Amino acid sequence: MALLQIGFLGATGETGSSIFNGLISSPQASDFHITALVRPSSLSKPANQALKSHKNVSLRTLDLTASPEELTSSLQGIEILISAIGATDQLSQIQLATAAKAAGVKRFIPCAFITVIPPGGIHLLRDQKQEVYNHIFQLGLSYTIIDVGWWYQISLPRVPSGKLDAVAGIVTPGIAGDGNVLSGLTDLRDIGKYVARIIQDERTVNKWVFVYNELWSQNAVYDLVEKRLGEKIDRTYLSEKDLLARIESPGEGPHALFVKVPAQYMRSWGIRGDNTPEYAKYLGYVTSKELYPDLEFTSFEKYLEDALEGRIKPVYEELRAQFEASREA
Amino acid sequence: MALLQIGFLGATGETGSSIFNGLISSPQASDFHITALVRPSSLSKPANQALKSHKNVSLRTLDLTASPEELTSSLQGIEILISAIGATDQLSQIQLATAAKAAGVKRFIPCAFITVIPPGGIHLLRDQKQEVYNHIFQLGLSYTIIDVGWWYQISLPRVPSGKLDAVAGIVTPGIAGDGNVLSGLTDLRDIGKYVARIIQDERTVNKWVFVYNELWSQNAVYDLVEKRLGEKIDRTYLSEKDLLARIESPGEGPHALFVKVPAQYMRSWGIRGDNTPEYAKYLGYVTSKELYPDLEFTSFEKYLEDALEGRIKPVYEELRAQFEASREA
Repeated sequence: MALLQIGFLGATGETGSSIFNGLISSPQASDFHITALVRPSSLSKPANQALKSHKNVSLRTLDLTASPEELTSSLQGIEILISAIGATDQLSQIQLATAAKAAGVKRFIPCAFITVIPPGGIHLLRDQKQEVYNHIFQLGLSYTIIDVGWWYQISLPRVPSGKLDAVAGIVTPGIAGDGNVLSGLTDLRDIGKYVARIIQDERTVNKWVFVYNELWSQNAVYDLVEKRLGEKIDRTYLSEKDLLARIESPGEGPHALFVKVPAQYMRSWGIRGDNTPEYAKYLGYVTSKELYPDLEFTSFEKYLEDALEGRIKPVYEELRAQFEASREA
Repeated sequence: MALLQIGFLGATGETGSSIFNGLISSPQASDFHITALVRPSSLSKPANQALKSHKNVSLRTLDLTASPEELTSSLQGIEILISAIGATDQLSQIQLATAAKAAGVKRFIPCAFITVIPPGGIHLLRDQKQEVYNHIFQLGLSYTIIDVGWWYQISLPRVPSGKLDAVAGIVTPGIAGDGNVLSGLTDLRDIGKYVARIIQDERTVNKWVFVYNELWSQNAVYDLVEKRLGEKIDRTYLSEKDLLARIESPGEGPHALFVKVPAQYMRSWGIRGDNTPEYAKYLGYVTSKELYPDLEFTSFEKYLEDALEGRIKPVYEELRAQFEASREA
């Protein structure tokens, strides 16, 4: 049988590397050939060159600023195009989708990969993604929109002993609302497994899929950590008003986004309760629980053990360094 | 059994009166109580007062500019809220939806009732409706979005003998594209029948439904009319470029909308091919053919006979008068 030709954008990014690793280590891996699509200026980077060491993986350059014809030719032969493009490059997927249609790509998996959020002003990144989705819809290009909940990797609080400092969430400045709202959490390491299933599953063509491992409230997470480590953690509760103040007046300069975006997320999953299977279904998603009840995923409790044993790679390392520096200053 | 309490906005409008008449004459009519919601300033109008003459219909005032509390209290007791509000009042459904949520309305049928069009710049009315839908989604209010294709009532061309002048389409300034693209057409008189089924159908909760009677191309419509009447009709073909010129430079003043909006529709259903069951399903709609294969509708050929025998009430009578005046000038 011919291998399924997958084109992959952003294989070395935070979400992208997780998906890439999940794909190449999935039970379906021997059915795939992955073409990692990289910017011409990044081709020689060791992280990109290292991708080639995997079986059935090749490298190809793709320049998102190239002419439509060149971009189309960069996608020749690709059947499934997966985009895990960086958060600040979302809108460049508009020309990418146009080229994918012209190149005959059979299914485009645009960069969704966030929590469930309705469009229309709740979250700026969600609204940018909607612009891309609308363009896909206007093209009539086959798609699957995959949202993945909130990562385990940014869900653990710091504890007084410092035992979780290496992996503790740096994104959330406290607990949203009363801390009791449930939200779908997913181990970043599991996302590729789901994606491997989804891209071979005809039921997911032209569908929205909500992938999540387990539902947790923030208080339940704190309770679990306190019990497991025998430490008491300060709980700073942020009301909707507190979060709206951060959203509406995030300050100036590039730092403003790091105030605004986390507050928009927290309001969505921590107060509005958007990131749940019920709300996802209301919006028209199918859930990973309905599609793949057999898929083995990592429980949040197991993830905590992995974290305590140093088996978790911290995410957002650059951001983390900045954050640590600001704490020490 | 208690009657299903329906609140109805816009019962005397073009689409609204069709839906209202369809509801009260549907086989399900004895299950409904309809509260026609009218502006305080329009309450005494004969057309509104006449609504009361129907069995199980009452009148109630609703002021869309009232306070949220007043608006909520105007919706007390309503289970299904149907909005067939005027084209220029779409955004006032934002406060209406908020009040519906507060009043405990079980399902909101916002004013969709147009052809299938993707959001994001193809059609200004579609994009306004999306703003309303996004607000509904953010509220988590149960909904059904019902689009209905293009009306038979605006699909017939004029013929040289003038036999169709009374009912001929005044909206379309010619044939879009090559005239061969299929589009879902619906008899305005049938829409209420579909709506009566949909509002009692749990399968349509939180779904998009595409209602249409038959698929016709513009050339097939012209062929039918030419054959039936034995007359040759001039065919003026408008290219996508012609339509885009009307869309992008529609002129000044209120007349501009009557240039722009028809051209946007024609480009969508006549060139892009948006108004088809295939594209609707791609966008996530379920179709009336899947839901109600047994529903008896009027064929387009039967509609043409009705038109020739004077059994069709012309639509947009005010617009029509303006149009006739401009032809004579």
